Amino acid sequence: MLVLYYAPDTCALATHIALEDAGAEYDLRRIDFKKQEQRAPDYLAINPKGRVPALVSPRGILTETPAMLAYVAQLHPDAHLAPLDDPFAFAQLQAFNSYICSTLHVAHAHRMRGERWADDKDAIAAMQRNVPVSVGACYAYIEEHEFTGPFVMGESYSIADPYLFTLYQWIEEDGVDPVEFPKLAAHREMMLQRTSVQTAFDAELKKAD
Amino acid sequence: MLVLYYAPDTCALATHIALEDAGAEYDLRRIDFKKQEQRAPDYLAINPKGRVPALVSPRGILTETPAMLAYVAQLHPDAHLAPLDDPFAFAQLQAFNSYICSTLHVAHAHRMRGERWADDKDAIAAMQRNVPVSVGACYAYIEEHEFTGPFVMGESYSIADPYLFTLYQWIEEDGVDPVEFPKLAAHREMMLQRTSVQTAFDAELKKAD
Repeated sequence: MLVLYYAPDTCALATHIALEDAGAEYDLRRIDFKKQEQRAPDYLAINPKGRVPALVSPRGILTETPAMLAYVAQLHPDAHLAPLDDPFAFAQLQAFNSYICSTLHVAHAHRMRGERWADDKDAIAAMQRNVPVSVGACYAYIEEHEFTGPFVMGESYSIADPYLFTLYQWIEEDGVDPVEFPKLAAHREMMLQRTSVQTAFDAELKKAD
Repeated sequence: MLVLYYAPDTCALATHIALEDAGAEYDLRRIDFKKQEQRAPDYLAINPKGRVPALVSPRGILTETPAMLAYVAQLHPDAHLAPLDDPFAFAQLQAFNSYICSTLHVAHAHRMRGERWADDKDAIAAMQRNVPVSVGACYAYIEEHEFTGPFVMGESYSIADPYLFTLYQWIEEDGVDPVEFPKLAAHREMMLQRTSVQTAFDAELKKAD
């Protein structure tokens, strides 16, 4: 049995959706950021990074969304969430997810988590002002060069789709107008219709009550 | 035949070393940052991100070091550069590489590439001042929680080793004292003895002449 540690409105949603897509058996454990549970000793013993998500398996603990997503796909090959038998196509998928975590998510994080990279209030405010530019550039790049359609990788749904969808949920708060990216906006609409997405949202809201 | 586009003293070194470790057939193409070749139309046609590395294969172009490293490992299974038949161990390896690209490399990049996240000179200077703290915290985390030894994943050399080694080359310039991390310092010394590392360094220096 897998256990996903998550907080609502974080990138944990990507793995949550993928677990639903995979038909995985898993349990959900909510970490309450308002109570700083991510820094409590109990949780640090699970994930010393003090962040979500973390995926606990009988073999041990995994962190980092791209690795967790690929693991969910590999554990459930019948769900066809990744091209597991084609190293080049798998690498393309991993490259997309790597870009999301190292460039798009990082650009986004400068809005709320500037203290990771500077301790100066004015510098943190300057980072926040720049977020629409840096996040917008990421979406422009994805829309033009990475997004095949209707899914990220083309005709086949994959673990890249819930990851893109999760970040894209924040586009308005990041100060970027989704109208600029019609392919990505259509992708969001399609994702919102999926049972896996609705189930994941419902579960996170219910646990948050 | 693979072609690796690189620039000296960049994270392209990780894939370069892995290609040597794998015994791969590949060609090297240097991109001259002083001439802004990474933004020239010829190169943007290959990699629209305008960065190195990029790996050109007969199937197409790959970017993002974690994906490229895993691809090199999968193309050369006899080199045993990743636990390809063990999804959990593979995910642990990918999680390590994902942390390097999304956290350690990002922390480091605030020293030289602050303009990615702010357009304000003082803010960029504030980011630079913080690099010893943020990069140091990454190495402290790796030394304590991620590094098994003698290699990253334990007894088996893997694609995580050249990636850690590549970033660690910059530790002094990042303002972090390597004496604080004896396991990582020993790893660097061991890596410097490897033929693959020496061959990659020699090739990059020769091409840079």
